[in-house]
Amino acid sequence: MSILVVGSVGLDSVETSAGKVENALGGSAIYFSVAASFFHNPIRLMAVIGDDFPQEHIHFLQSRAIDLTGLELIQGGKTFRWGGRYTDDPNAALTLFTHLNVYGDFNPKLPANHKDTHFVFLANINPELQLSVLQQTTDAKLIVCDTMNLWINNSRDALIRTLSKVDILIINDSEARLLTDESNLIRAAKAILTYGPNRVIIKKGEHGAVSLTDSTFFSAPAYPLQIVSDPTGAGDSFAGGFLGYLASTGDTSEHTIRKAIIYGTVIASFNVEDFSLNRQRSLTPAEINQRYSEIQKSVQL
Amino acid sequence: MSILVVGSVGLDSVETSAGKVENALGGSAIYFSVAASFFHNPIRLMAVIGDDFPQEHIHFLQSRAIDLTGLELIQGGKTFRWGGRYTDDPNAALTLFTHLNVYGDFNPKLPANHKDTHFVFLANINPELQLSVLQQTTDAKLIVCDTMNLWINNSRDALIRTLSKVDILIINDSEARLLTDESNLIRAAKAILTYGPNRVIIKKGEHGAVSLTDSTFFSAPAYPLQIVSDPTGAGDSFAGGFLGYLASTGDTSEHTIRKAIIYGTVIASFNVEDFSLNRQRSLTPAEINQRYSEIQKSVQL
Repeated sequence: MSILVVGSVGLDSVETSAGKVENALGGSAIYFSVAASFFHNPIRLMAVIGDDFPQEHIHFLQSRAIDLTGLELIQGGKTFRWGGRYTDDPNAALTLFTHLNVYGDFNPKLPANHKDTHFVFLANINPELQLSVLQQTTDAKLIVCDTMNLWINNSRDALIRTLSKVDILIINDSEARLLTDESNLIRAAKAILTYGPNRVIIKKGEHGAVSLTDSTFFSAPAYPLQIVSDPTGAGDSFAGGFLGYLASTGDTSEHTIRKAIIYGTVIASFNVEDFSLNRQRSLTPAEINQRYSEIQKSVQL
Repeated sequence: MSILVVGSVGLDSVETSAGKVENALGGSAIYFSVAASFFHNPIRLMAVIGDDFPQEHIHFLQSRAIDLTGLELIQGGKTFRWGGRYTDDPNAALTLFTHLNVYGDFNPKLPANHKDTHFVFLANINPELQLSVLQQTTDAKLIVCDTMNLWINNSRDALIRTLSKVDILIINDSEARLLTDESNLIRAAKAILTYGPNRVIIKKGEHGAVSLTDSTFFSAPAYPLQIVSDPTGAGDSFAGGFLGYLASTGDTSEHTIRKAIIYGTVIASFNVEDFSLNRQRSLTPAEINQRYSEIQKSVQL
């Protein structure tokens, strides 16, 4: 099964209680594709960069066998930049600046040899662009989507149109409440199912995640981390581990989806142990499986 | 195995988005013992009431086979009263009034035939009183304790002394953070283990609970409730279901503790479906087992 992600590639400046980084590799499409690459190859990445994007990051993505055919390079353009700070609550980022740069005019054109992609992840970008990418695919079997409060507040109609075409929405708890105006998470999840997706996965940070369909309910624990150095990219790493594992099996049964959610949890838990994608650079399949097994034991009855 | 609880018996006036009640049966020892009574009999209840305490409540407790030998009646005294309001967040009660009344002079004297109790639950009262009850027991095999922000802030030294004698502390997430000054829950739990308890169970409301020892970690899901009518007594119902089940087996292995945590979760989930102990009045063992099995399925990998 082939996987495509459309989203951001950027350079992040992040401050947390553990330290800070400047212009470090980041962006939703990056976190997603690196996470997915631990399970499946190649990941087709669709994004845009300026000519200031460091060549070393290209090499890193290539070392993860990520297919960069869809990575558009704008000569004379500047790469997307985001600056943020986290205080004690790892779920709440304070955005210090957002420089869209080349994303200001991003109009994703799917390369001809990507149109037949089976598993599509619409990372957190303008829902109009998510819809446009979707319309260019011909063989999508599973469409998974993320979003954020910016689009829920400012582009609600477009977002609702996108959601009507999506199989799975992955969203965090505060976004789910905002989208549905329901304070109870289970009611929020049920409301989301009426918008189109047949499954919603709500991420709850240190409290794990829940996955609901009309007929199933799964409660996934978090990995018990004692230190969170940098929460940036946790959600996209979760989605990448999730979809990468699913694609590696080709199966979307409830049983496999549950395993995939735990693999997503595992990759996200490693991601937040260090800034940017630093932890992923040394991450091994043995470490992933060890943590999967620890989580499995933590819910055993 | 015999169970003893020392705590409050009171009349609660509670307002939530689902409605309100006035002078309804409440108090930590009541919620605990009624919950425990679904698994084990008799529960020895130690508390104090005034002569204004309605006889119908005594009949209800007797119908649950709760042993009232330790329930002191103060002639001319007034029963403890609490008034509170919940907004959208079911974990945050706003206290409108607390009238200690007969609890102002409460000095628990364990009846002679209760001294040999095996399982002791020190519900949320002044830690000096918790310690005094503990010193009157002769055969305690498992001592479980609750507390709240009032004692953490105002009686910290006494609380730390009590904790040094306790096997299991059951506490909610905000109290665990307050007690240890650690924002990360796993670090907070590890800090609590250094105070004396060999196990800490942290309740997280809609996010379930976690249980930690030096060598084990258990993540318990919540039951996916769509409506919470009245959160009052959820924590004590959890403790009652937990300890009632444990006492019914006589076993305190990790495996049985995990099952007991799920039974505690089940009783707490029924408790919040209605005001006061109304839901418990019609609750059946078949309903309890049905919900246990649903929770078990919700974590199956």
